[in-house]
Amino acid sequence: MTQEFFASVCQPDEQTQLDAYARQAILTKPQGALGLLEEIAVRLAGMQGTANPQIKQPWVSVFAADHGIAATGVSAFPQVVTQEMVKNFCRGGAAINVLACFAHANFEVVDVGVIQDVAPLAHLVSARVAAGTQNFLEQPAMSQAQLLQALQVGADAVNRAKQSGADLFICGEMGIGNTTAASAITAVLSGQSVSALVGEGTGIGFRQKKQKVQSIEQAIELHQAHLTSPLRVLQYLGGFEIAAMTGAYLRGAQLGMPMVVDGVIASVAVWVADFIARNDQLAGCTSVEQMMELGKYSLPETLFCTCGSLPRITEWCFFAHQSVEPAHAVILEALGVTPMLNFEMRLGEASGAALVIPLLQQACALHNQMATFEQAEVSGAH
Amino acid sequence: MTQEFFASVCQPDEQTQLDAYARQAILTKPQGALGLLEEIAVRLAGMQGTANPQIKQPWVSVFAADHGIAATGVSAFPQVVTQEMVKNFCRGGAAINVLACFAHANFEVVDVGVIQDVAPLAHLVSARVAAGTQNFLEQPAMSQAQLLQALQVGADAVNRAKQSGADLFICGEMGIGNTTAASAITAVLSGQSVSALVGEGTGIGFRQKKQKVQSIEQAIELHQAHLTSPLRVLQYLGGFEIAAMTGAYLRGAQLGMPMVVDGVIASVAVWVADFIARNDQLAGCTSVEQMMELGKYSLPETLFCTCGSLPRITEWCFFAHQSVEPAHAVILEALGVTPMLNFEMRLGEASGAALVIPLLQQACALHNQMATFEQAEVSGAH
Repeated sequence: MTQEFFASVCQPDEQTQLDAYARQAILTKPQGALGLLEEIAVRLAGMQGTANPQIKQPWVSVFAADHGIAATGVSAFPQVVTQEMVKNFCRGGAAINVLACFAHANFEVVDVGVIQDVAPLAHLVSARVAAGTQNFLEQPAMSQAQLLQALQVGADAVNRAKQSGADLFICGEMGIGNTTAASAITAVLSGQSVSALVGEGTGIGFRQKKQKVQSIEQAIELHQAHLTSPLRVLQYLGGFEIAAMTGAYLRGAQLGMPMVVDGVIASVAVWVADFIARNDQLAGCTSVEQMMELGKYSLPETLFCTCGSLPRITEWCFFAHQSVEPAHAVILEALGVTPMLNFEMRLGEASGAALVIPLLQQACALHNQMATFEQAEVSGAH
Repeated sequence: MTQEFFASVCQPDEQTQLDAYARQAILTKPQGALGLLEEIAVRLAGMQGTANPQIKQPWVSVFAADHGIAATGVSAFPQVVTQEMVKNFCRGGAAINVLACFAHANFEVVDVGVIQDVAPLAHLVSARVAAGTQNFLEQPAMSQAQLLQALQVGADAVNRAKQSGADLFICGEMGIGNTTAASAITAVLSGQSVSALVGEGTGIGFRQKKQKVQSIEQAIELHQAHLTSPLRVLQYLGGFEIAAMTGAYLRGAQLGMPMVVDGVIASVAVWVADFIARNDQLAGCTSVEQMMELGKYSLPETLFCTCGSLPRITEWCFFAHQSVEPAHAVILEALGVTPMLNFEMRLGEASGAALVIPLLQQACALHNQMATFEQAEVSGAH
């Protein structure tokens, strides 16, 4: 792992935001009448540091990995589906392919640790940490070294996007069993009961859901003593793809890259990244051991953790949609954000995030192309 | 007015819908995981009667007209803004222009009765009923003949769209004072108090809002004896652009044209059209006098009016967004529909409706282009 994580998160340019806000007020419409679209344009102007924000080169990375816990039957689908879907992504048959294509986005799949190595395939980046995580009912999901490696895989994806001229970064995930990992992390960081957070995932029934809850409760009990920081929680209960997304969001915010966040798994990753970024020690870290303990939380105050007024990861994020997974609402509330859509989606793959690319582009087009009252010779309000 | 209104509303094709639903179940995703996008694709398949629904030629008509009531100062903007905005639409500077252009939609402005005739201008269809409605504090907003003429203007727009090969019809409105008319209609049809329905419109303050409420209450009292059917309410308290939209929605549903409904003004028009369509007498009408009295309502049961199981106008409509105008929530509840977005918009002009065109197209693309489990060789659920 490089030292690039030991840096502060950027802040969107405030003056550009104020200028953009002032422009919205002179466009031919009642002030504020375009609602959220005005806010999107103003925020993007600040992120891109320009009066004319635009999304011309969106980038989508889907991180795929397997989960040791999947062997215990927490999912409605067999574990082999992870690698089968990776092939489907590479051949263009999945939902995210259709949506990335619709938005003319660059698309790649990053293998962070699918059980079977399926490389080489078109659009596939091989960055395997291991052949799946360990079963966290028996041992930590991953070692510290593996966690750091997975974080770096995510950061590398953002670096690639930046290098290629992308003006919007989106990441998503594929990993049978990963709502189990995400629910476990959410339970620890929020202090809420596991049963209140676990949903139907890809479509499990009552009995399987009960087992999923019990597995998570057991795992939290087993590792309790080691769950001393958000990164430790990620290490003991997470997955390679969740860690990669965490590294991606952290790196994106450090590079000042606008990002759209997908559903519950993506939001867990933002949450962990945000804990780290909000800690004023990050830029002063000299070792990974220091970084690993950043963002200490103490239950039950976690939800209200205030770590000063440092830049937030969320300042670089648009939250695409409200997933039907119960854990998502808890995370969004903890982050203090409101998602754009409520379409009752629960697919992952970055599908919800890619869906809103046109909405961001429409917000930019309105901001850049509408006539002002003066240009159009339209009278203002009384 | 032609006899074309005296026809039944079409019904989307049920078998095609069932087939589309079955296809959604074999695409490479957990069943239902694309939420609302699946529902959109299935509904569109039924409306278009095809296994591969698509939106390739969207059509946008903006109906513009002035309101006699505007002279009493119910709006934040001077009345002249209606005609100024018509010019802005024709020159491409308004929000709807930007959104129609983004979606490659055909765009026209229909002058149904702006005070000053500004024709000819590019994209302008002149179909003037009169130079604005009368002030409904003094007399009916329009005569019966004018109402019928305005309904026909709307129907004509749908006929033009159909003729040109449009596969999606959207209409919107421009008319300083029209939230006042829309709130008045909503108050009568819902039986709710005017003060609970009136919002800030284009941005009025507390004092002006109080005056707006009083004006509406006075008008309803003045015309009470004549408010015997939804079309009579439209005649006495409505506007030419609202009547045109009513005619458009009715005609659209008769022609089997998929439509997207914008905000509160558009929804009032759908509501009135739906009252008529749900009445089993419509197809049997032999005179406009008969039609005028269709859809009898009796307060306070209006909200729960059931006129049998006839096809609904709403079966052909996607509701784009939840406006911040309080009356909108009341109408949406009465119609039993849920809008796609909640973006805190309150602009009109069809802007909210045009905004969701890409979302409909994305739903179609997913439905048509995703691989099935079999094609992609992906395992199904246990």
